[in-house]
Amino acid sequence: MDFHGAHILSVKQFERADVDVVFRVADGMEPYAQRKRITKALDGAILGNMFFEPSTRTRVSFGCAFNLLGGHVRETTDIKTSSLTKGESLYDTARVTSGYSDVVVMRHPKVGSVAEFAAASRVPVINGGDGSNEHPSQALLDLYTIKKELKSNDREIDGMHIAMVGDLVHGRTVHSLSQLLLLYNNITFTLISPAELRMPAEIVAELKAAGHRVVETEDMEAGLQDNDTVYLTRIQEERFTTKLEADIYRGRFRLNQAIYTRYCQPNTIIMHPLPRDSRKEASELDNDLNQHPNLAIFRQTDNGVLVRMALFALILGVADKIEQSAGEVGWYTEGRF
Amino acid sequence: MDFHGAHILSVKQFERADVDVVFRVADGMEPYAQRKRITKALDGAILGNMFFEPSTRTRVSFGCAFNLLGGHVRETTDIKTSSLTKGESLYDTARVTSGYSDVVVMRHPKVGSVAEFAAASRVPVINGGDGSNEHPSQALLDLYTIKKELKSNDREIDGMHIAMVGDLVHGRTVHSLSQLLLLYNNITFTLISPAELRMPAEIVAELKAAGHRVVETEDMEAGLQDNDTVYLTRIQEERFTTKLEADIYRGRFRLNQAIYTRYCQPNTIIMHPLPRDSRKEASELDNDLNQHPNLAIFRQTDNGVLVRMALFALILGVADKIEQSAGEVGWYTEGRF
Amino acid sequence: MDFHGAHILSVKQFERADVDVVFRVADGMEPYAQRKRITKALDGAILGNMFFEPSTRTRVSFGCAFNLLGGHVRETTDIKTSSLTKGESLYDTARVTSGYSDVVVMRHPKVGSVAEFAAASRVPVINGGDGSNEHPSQALLDLYTIKKELKSNDREIDGMHIAMVGDLVHGRTVHSLSQLLLLYNNITFTLISPAELRMPAEIVAELKAAGHRVVETEDMEAGLQDNDTVYLTRIQEERFTTKLEADIYRGRFRLNQAIYTRYCQPNTIIMHPLPRDSRKEASELDNDLNQHPNLAIFRQTDNGVLVRMALFALILGVADKIEQSAGEVGWYTEGRF
Repeated sequence: MDFHGAHILSVKQFERADVDVVFRVADGMEPYAQRKRITKALDGAILGNMFFEPSTRTRVSFGCAFNLLGGHVRETTDIKTSSLTKGESLYDTARVTSGYSDVVVMRHPKVGSVAEFAAASRVPVINGGDGSNEHPSQALLDLYTIKKELKSNDREIDGMHIAMVGDLVHGRTVHSLSQLLLLYNNITFTLISPAELRMPAEIVAELKAAGHRVVETEDMEAGLQDNDTVYLTRIQEERFTTKLEADIYRGRFRLNQAIYTRYCQPNTIIMHPLPRDSRKEASELDNDLNQHPNLAIFRQTDNGVLVRMALFALILGVADKIEQSAGEVGWYTEGRF
Repeated sequence: MDFHGAHILSVKQFERADVDVVFRVADGMEPYAQRKRITKALDGAILGNMFFEPSTRTRVSFGCAFNLLGGHVRETTDIKTSSLTKGESLYDTARVTSGYSDVVVMRHPKVGSVAEFAAASRVPVINGGDGSNEHPSQALLDLYTIKKELKSNDREIDGMHIAMVGDLVHGRTVHSLSQLLLLYNNITFTLISPAELRMPAEIVAELKAAGHRVVETEDMEAGLQDNDTVYLTRIQEERFTTKLEADIYRGRFRLNQAIYTRYCQPNTIIMHPLPRDSRKEASELDNDLNQHPNLAIFRQTDNGVLVRMALFALILGVADKIEQSAGEVGWYTEGRF
Repeated sequence: MDFHGAHILSVKQFERADVDVVFRVADGMEPYAQRKRITKALDGAILGNMFFEPSTRTRVSFGCAFNLLGGHVRETTDIKTSSLTKGESLYDTARVTSGYSDVVVMRHPKVGSVAEFAAASRVPVINGGDGSNEHPSQALLDLYTIKKELKSNDREIDGMHIAMVGDLVHGRTVHSLSQLLLLYNNITFTLISPAELRMPAEIVAELKAAGHRVVETEDMEAGLQDNDTVYLTRIQEERFTTKLEADIYRGRFRLNQAIYTRYCQPNTIIMHPLPRDSRKEASELDNDLNQHPNLAIFRQTDNGVLVRMALFALILGVADKIEQSAGEVGWYTEGRF
């Protein structure tokens, strides 16, 4: 794919070679994200960071990624502060606001809204999440994390074993990650969830059609065994009709130190898209694993900055110009990391 | 008028020569707004973008304009996050916050509040809208758009015919635009509205006293004929006591492709301050005109950035220094516009 | 103390020599805050300005201080837009968001929350207020103001007389300022409050143990006499169970021009942490003193920018590099101050 000026709306846009490009550029962003160097590659550029649904993490991650490339960030954080409440169409919002910035990141609760916005936009748009539909930069950062974590152990994505655990019917991240994994070969998926929250049948079918092995189970303990990666998810309370309905499932599948030691491999990577629900009744990923070296959840969010920097750099055509406008970091960073 | 350090509170401050200055400076901003060049004229300066009422469009437009001149933007987006709820006076808010920035843009629901703030401010203040009262940068961008659109057809503001349509009693933009047009000669105004939403009598009287011709009518079809510009407005639901009361008028005067073709001139410019209400029951400006070359509504918002850059540059005394600190754009912009 | 990479969580961290360092660096920030020079000392650095409770003044003050040092600012302004509502722990929030920025300023309604956040953070954290607990930069700016105001009259902190007036039980600022004044010698405190809103006994005991003289009284007129500084506070309505309960005390101790002239010394400095409650029923510090040369309340907020610049510069190790990356201000600033 040609990244120059492209919208990033769905993981389905990506060929395996495209993913490789994103990951190679992301690797090159490390010195900047870790404050070993600064760059001004996007000096003078403006990001329109348009969030029509709460999301501190994703919003700030994109904003920081843009700042780290030297650009300005303008933001919208709440649909209530928007003309959309006065009957404005997404078409109008897109025509107008795309005139203000050089690239837009948009999150919106409605499925398809970001694509609709992009169709009318005059600048590239990155989907920062449209309801239960897509959130491509999350899938890319998840896959990037898996690749890096496996590599440190001389393993690779082709042929790996991955368990996905929890609310697999609503979990946008496991859907998108599965989509991306269609590009790879010979993976074993163990899908652990309550029967009512199983991975959608079309996704399972796609995985099988791509030659992957898929096992679906409600037996957490059996399912956890023999995996390179365990990807846990939160019960997506906000996608249920009532909190009560969500409560039925909350806390049913948990990973903690004891379970990990007993059932997982010694080098099984632990992932979670975050936020994890740390309330006592949930705790799908227990805090007693916080110091575990295989807990990759905070490396995931760090990798998110790298991947988002890569997407901005590719879309805006500066992936090869990062070093040209680079310089020294002038402040104290020793305490960092 | 001397723009250096001046507050911009009302269109009534402007002489015709002042308007000419703003427009000439705005013309010079085009290469920067279109990302053909970047400038650092306001490097190190801080805009205090203080919005005590929802307004994505205006807020982001001012913020981008400041970023495009190289400055930083600090924002307040909601009165609930403000000390005003703890009984703080506007005087105190002004004394304090004007110490933080180099120029303030302020929107506030209360008529006169921005002038009250400016009286206590230690830095220049631009009125970004004070209730139903004033929003001078909107009037300037409207007039700037009219001028540019007419010019591309060898017409000019003096002597033009303009129709204003819709909620003329509450529409702040048509009031302010009318005020600015007092500075010009021999204009014909056709004011099309329900009898209950007519343009305030004092404004009509002022227009007539300035030598303009004013026709008031409820007959949309007759009124549309023989105009250089048609300026449509939304029913300002938020200024009515109830939504029901607003509903009486919503959708009563509409412009669409069929009506335009039948009643307007082939080169009649179509304007709207936006947001337009695209809900089916409203549609004062139909989406079937979205591709029409004379639809100037998105050029209006683009011009808004130019006009706001011009105001900042004039107030902060850098209008002649833009090119001095200019440089090349380093990123991909080909998809743009 | 070693400021490099340090968290600033409490005034109790500071020795007198540390305070001196902060104040000396703050003095050096004046040309930058007053727009006589610009600096890029923190070029490329990112502040995570995380406010989980409304606070325009403090949030913007920190943000501007960071911008004035050349850095970027990313913000969170509302707990509702946060993953915390999905059950995320402060530990996770800290691990994740500290990966985005170079320093974090955090305000949170819960006592101790900022320290908890800092314990998990990978970058330095400044406490911007944790409930009724601590707000160290406010105490530092108050003390810095006292020092500067006294100095202009050849007085000093050691040996001064200070009256604190109003809601001394809930007023976080008077608690923190008292803590800092433990580092000085021979001060006379006159604590004027309703009996129910007296300064906590442990603080009074600490002041006495440090050799200071403390007088507690409900008699405003007597208490106001013979002071170098009068520090007034607002009734902290939000810390009472009901508005009605707060109303009992509101407006009971007021300072106005007549009272000042009658009871205060001619050079008594008037301070208030702001916001002051200017509603008629409160008016603890009357607007008829707004032009009084001894009214230091707006100099306090200006000093807040200097002190916060100093803290950032010290923590990030650029206190000695400000001038190295300094340059000329390119825009019009004559109207300022």
